[in-house]
Amino acid sequence: MNILSEHACWGGVQRFVTHDSRECAAPMRLAVYEPPQARAHAVPVLYYLAGLTCTDETFTIKAGAQRLAAEHGLMLVAPDTSPRQPRIAGDDASWDFGIAAGFYVDATVAPWSAHYRMYGYVTRELPEFVAAHFPADVRRQSIMGHSMGGHGALVGALRNPASYRSVSAFAPICAPSRVPWGEKAFTGYLGPDRDDWRQYDASALVEQAPFHSEILVDQGSADQFLAGQLRPELLADACRRSGQGLRLRMQAGYDHSYYFIQTFMPEHVAWHAAALRASG
Amino acid sequence: MNILSEHACWGGVQRFVTHDSRECAAPMRLAVYEPPQARAHAVPVLYYLAGLTCTDETFTIKAGAQRLAAEHGLMLVAPDTSPRQPRIAGDDASWDFGIAAGFYVDATVAPWSAHYRMYGYVTRELPEFVAAHFPADVRRQSIMGHSMGGHGALVGALRNPASYRSVSAFAPICAPSRVPWGEKAFTGYLGPDRDDWRQYDASALVEQAPFHSEILVDQGSADQFLAGQLRPELLADACRRSGQGLRLRMQAGYDHSYYFIQTFMPEHVAWHAAALRASG
Repeated sequence: MNILSEHACWGGVQRFVTHDSRECAAPMRLAVYEPPQARAHAVPVLYYLAGLTCTDETFTIKAGAQRLAAEHGLMLVAPDTSPRQPRIAGDDASWDFGIAAGFYVDATVAPWSAHYRMYGYVTRELPEFVAAHFPADVRRQSIMGHSMGGHGALVGALRNPASYRSVSAFAPICAPSRVPWGEKAFTGYLGPDRDDWRQYDASALVEQAPFHSEILVDQGSADQFLAGQLRPELLADACRRSGQGLRLRMQAGYDHSYYFIQTFMPEHVAWHAAALRASG
Repeated sequence: MNILSEHACWGGVQRFVTHDSRECAAPMRLAVYEPPQARAHAVPVLYYLAGLTCTDETFTIKAGAQRLAAEHGLMLVAPDTSPRQPRIAGDDASWDFGIAAGFYVDATVAPWSAHYRMYGYVTRELPEFVAAHFPADVRRQSIMGHSMGGHGALVGALRNPASYRSVSAFAPICAPSRVPWGEKAFTGYLGPDRDDWRQYDASALVEQAPFHSEILVDQGSADQFLAGQLRPELLADACRRSGQGLRLRMQAGYDHSYYFIQTFMPEHVAWHAAALRASG
């Protein structure tokens, strides 16, 4: 692990680090916030997965979450949104595929399959890495995300319910198999067989096996991507059919930005903190 | 006024706008946060002046202040840090002079004197502009800033005590006449005569005429610019000599970043809110 920078923040420390990822066979950046409580004992971990075009810095700079993590005694872990090197031909040809658009899948199509393994990176490698290098109790962890990262958080939790106490999302891509962003990414990373896409589609997964507790989703009504890319109604329908608890809140007038995210972040962090405090 | 974007945030609205500045004879950008209370009545205004290399977006994205403005019912106004057009030869030759480095002075040296008039822009034009276009009660206004902007806030308040109820700063350049950043900027904008610099040097101004109430300054002890550029001890000495109340707090381990600023922003906004609530 290489520490890029560290900053005192709300009595704790905000760090930016890089490490060599086994899953991605690439160096990966991430941001880790250690709350003041971590000086005395290992603390639970809350992961945040960011959206298209974002980096490990986006949430860290814009979401106002360190204050809340310090209040609740949680570590915040925000990985980058894709590998960035070694470079692959075409990886920056569009903003919604390749660099900063890993879509939290393990690619099976060459050349992406060599490095674009963000699903395994987030769900398998990252908890091990965090446990090895930080005062974290990864038996207690939860996950949230925004947009593409909301999709990643939902998929990670639905496929690994024993790993996460709780899951929430801001404006997630709820049914990626059925919207342009997801269709482009899944075709490129996974190939044309739509059966292979179901393992990365929250609205499909939730019908196979619900999560063990209620899912929290906030969605702005003025979000420019709501009808075309996000489609929370498809997740709501699937949850209804499978008996999955879903607290889907339409937030009047809010858009897709971090001005929306920061407004509702306190309720998301409190939601996760309550689950992480529970015994078990 | 041209609205560039608007975002719902903490029940209010974050706007980015441009307008044609009379003082700068140039288009100027600024960020204005209207708290929810502004829908019912005019609200007090808290200005924030940013530092070198920053824009109107820096504070708006990084400081976490909208939450506090919504809580206290204050409008936040964050101007850009210099004119950016029309371009002047050499305006981007260095990061600490020209674009994003207006230093909150009214330049007297050509060619800068044609546009670089950020002192007049902030203290004279901006209150008029805000009063004309937003539900603001500019009889109640306060000012704060960071680094170069902390210098700007202190100078603005010391020279216009009747205009501002309170002033605070994060890691301000306390004695610009006596440090490299200030010497470069003042020489370039004001010329070599150091007597002309005193009107823009908080440590000189406070000895001539103290502010009407205590000044709040937070300074990180791990700030890389502390000894070479910021020198709060010179402001403290000047305040002691003139009887100016100064609450200078050295914050152990904090650096020059917005991770420092966001940590102490709640106390600064509360400080100003208390002054703005007071009758008078």
